[in-house]
Amino acid sequence: MSKNKISGKAYLAELANNVPSNARRNFLKQGVKFSTGLVAAVASNEAISGNSTALDVPSWSKSLGSGVVSTPYGIPSKFEKNVIRRTVPWLTADKISSISMSPIQELKGIITPNGLVFERYHAGSPTVDPEQHRLMIHGLVDNPLMFTMDDLMRFPSESVIHFLECPANGGMEWRGPQMEALQFTHGMVSCCEWTGVRLSTLLDEVGLKSKAKWVLAEGADGAGMSRSIPLDKALDDALIVYAQNGEMLRPEQGYPVRLFNPGWEGNTSVKWLRRLEIGDKPWHHREETSKYTDLMPDGRARRFTYEQEANSVITSPCPENPWGSRGSYQIEGIAWSGRGKIKQVDISLDGGVSWRPTKLKGLVLSKALTRFSLPYSWDGAPALLQSRAIDETGYVQPTLSQLRKVRGTNTIYHKNSIHTWQLLSDGKVKNVQLK
Amino acid sequence: MSKNKISGKAYLAELANNVPSNARRNFLKQGVKFSTGLVAAVASNEAISGNSTALDVPSWSKSLGSGVVSTPYGIPSKFEKNVIRRTVPWLTADKISSISMSPIQELKGIITPNGLVFERYHAGSPTVDPEQHRLMIHGLVDNPLMFTMDDLMRFPSESVIHFLECPANGGMEWRGPQMEALQFTHGMVSCCEWTGVRLSTLLDEVGLKSKAKWVLAEGADGAGMSRSIPLDKALDDALIVYAQNGEMLRPEQGYPVRLFNPGWEGNTSVKWLRRLEIGDKPWHHREETSKYTDLMPDGRARRFTYEQEANSVITSPCPENPWGSRGSYQIEGIAWSGRGKIKQVDISLDGGVSWRPTKLKGLVLSKALTRFSLPYSWDGAPALLQSRAIDETGYVQPTLSQLRKVRGTNTIYHKNSIHTWQLLSDGKVKNVQLK
Repeated sequence: MSKNKISGKAYLAELANNVPSNARRNFLKQGVKFSTGLVAAVASNEAISGNSTALDVPSWSKSLGSGVVSTPYGIPSKFEKNVIRRTVPWLTADKISSISMSPIQELKGIITPNGLVFERYHAGSPTVDPEQHRLMIHGLVDNPLMFTMDDLMRFPSESVIHFLECPANGGMEWRGPQMEALQFTHGMVSCCEWTGVRLSTLLDEVGLKSKAKWVLAEGADGAGMSRSIPLDKALDDALIVYAQNGEMLRPEQGYPVRLFNPGWEGNTSVKWLRRLEIGDKPWHHREETSKYTDLMPDGRARRFTYEQEANSVITSPCPENPWGSRGSYQIEGIAWSGRGKIKQVDISLDGGVSWRPTKLKGLVLSKALTRFSLPYSWDGAPALLQSRAIDETGYVQPTLSQLRKVRGTNTIYHKNSIHTWQLLSDGKVKNVQLK
Repeated sequence: MSKNKISGKAYLAELANNVPSNARRNFLKQGVKFSTGLVAAVASNEAISGNSTALDVPSWSKSLGSGVVSTPYGIPSKFEKNVIRRTVPWLTADKISSISMSPIQELKGIITPNGLVFERYHAGSPTVDPEQHRLMIHGLVDNPLMFTMDDLMRFPSESVIHFLECPANGGMEWRGPQMEALQFTHGMVSCCEWTGVRLSTLLDEVGLKSKAKWVLAEGADGAGMSRSIPLDKALDDALIVYAQNGEMLRPEQGYPVRLFNPGWEGNTSVKWLRRLEIGDKPWHHREETSKYTDLMPDGRARRFTYEQEANSVITSPCPENPWGSRGSYQIEGIAWSGRGKIKQVDISLDGGVSWRPTKLKGLVLSKALTRFSLPYSWDGAPALLQSRAIDETGYVQPTLSQLRKVRGTNTIYHKNSIHTWQLLSDGKVKNVQLK
């Protein structure tokens, strides 16, 4: 923290600490109604009820719109055409083994709509025929079994809201700020309602032998994506998932069936799941040796780093959501932890010198995105905005220098450090890192 | 209930009461693994790990799939093309003033994906430009105001998961069973995470005069759809909503902004909201006089019937989801109440003679869809399946005869009575009504 403090203090010379402590009603009155004329006053009630020019009758009020089932499966408004997943062209050699990010700068609440859930795969998103698809469970079991989709859907199901995050989220920023967009600094995270069968239910069916300790999950994609999962997780909250946000999985999310390990790095939740092999030790496959490991300063590699530790980021303001005129705003963001519920999120306006608690909004669920906000009356003073999440285990989101001290700079994954946005006096927001 | 009992008992002659009371593990073993050979046993582990013919390597495992951002805004698998909203051609004169239903027979969990939320409007779904759109609040207020979308989005927001239901849901069935599809008997209900500003926050801004008692909400569609809302509701949990399931409202859901009255009939949640007028009495507009009223047996009309009372329906099995071979199934369904949380859902297999409690699954939220299920080992015996919801106020979903006794048969709206599916010995499901 000491380094941050120094840098933050230098910056503080021009920073006005001007967050009001007054109640919401007064805050709004000052901010929206009185201070900036943001909301237009209406001349008189009479003018409005009569044939006022104050409230125009637009063209769409004078015509008929489109009929029902114009889109039997609906799509967003044409005015939202910029709210899409995006990829960073230079990040990967091609789009077949690549990643796209969710436009989290545009999202509200905690649910990510299915069309905007981030994508990550290693050999493209395959088109799997659910009628032909099979899931086999074998290895150290009493009765190896092969399941059709119909079989799986006859078991008792569960529906849970959890985030899903790639451990590379934020990874481009290990050595310095590169991305002038929230979508690219933190967009490898999404949150959905997932429905499926407890993996423990299926393992009950096959019957585990006493030596069973690990599960190999293998995908039906061209990469044969595979990961070793400890049996403890498989028997805890792991799910065999076939639906997201009410409907069947999207192709790029593993249609028709995937593993889902709540709170764990996304690649362990193997998509297009075709095979679960039960063994007594991990398999050391490609995606847990050459990939999804972190090279430490001493030359050794961290492996099986499953848990996504507590993280948070301010989504408003951000580079894509600058502030305009001075006045009242909500500083808002999302927080999440692979270890359970978010307990608290603090916000700093001065680069980590001082912190104030935010309000957690809406549902606060275990291993799910959680919204936080702080009302802020902005007088145009620049600021160094940070958020810091604390989860129910007491884990506190670290600073970047704390994380670098332990992990060095050769690593790619699990960069969950406190992020800094520089708010400029013109309301623009820059991605910066404090020394 | 007495009439149901008689009819149910006659039917019972051929009904075997065969729900097991054993534990889940045993239930599954009997049902899935041992009884019907549903799940294929695998010959040996060796055969599988080697070049087994047991688990084929399909074509999609031997090729590359599509790259990221092939669909910047994603769409469902082509194998899910039948999971769409549908309308009943004879129900309305045209599609401009019509309704489409959600395919609730296919949905999982409690979230309805935005592409499948039911549609209802009176002059088509307009294309509203959010830059030009304004919301005016005027009438018995101190400071009438006009809000842009940017203004609205600077106020503190809330995100809540609630169902939305047309009061005509099930209305075609008042006089007898007509629809051989769950999508058409109950598909005018959906459930989303809605994000917006508390209406009370905006009313604080304009300042209510002491005589204020009612709010007129008016839409910007060609119908100028309008409803009178009591001030109590406006100051309670009513929201000015701009987002659903994380993204901006879909056009057919009122883009860019709508009123949302949790638990109340859908038409009161006026879409494409342009005007809120504060008054001292209701306006008696078209949609609360000639429409959205119920003609009672004595010739008088029920009006301002806002609350959607507790309702439930079994979604599996249903006409679209028949059972195949005998064995283990989950009888599953959805329940909801406009008055609060679902407390309990019971299932009858004998047309209401006897009832057994189900398990409520996942999140049980106020004024939201709630899932229930009951494991059932089916031996091919026919059954009369019913579900009965009880909400936290103690309200019990009525039988059809109870409802008809009070409301007669001239009514269209608020048919929330217990629904009956007839399960035949071949697993097919028919829509029936008990005398």
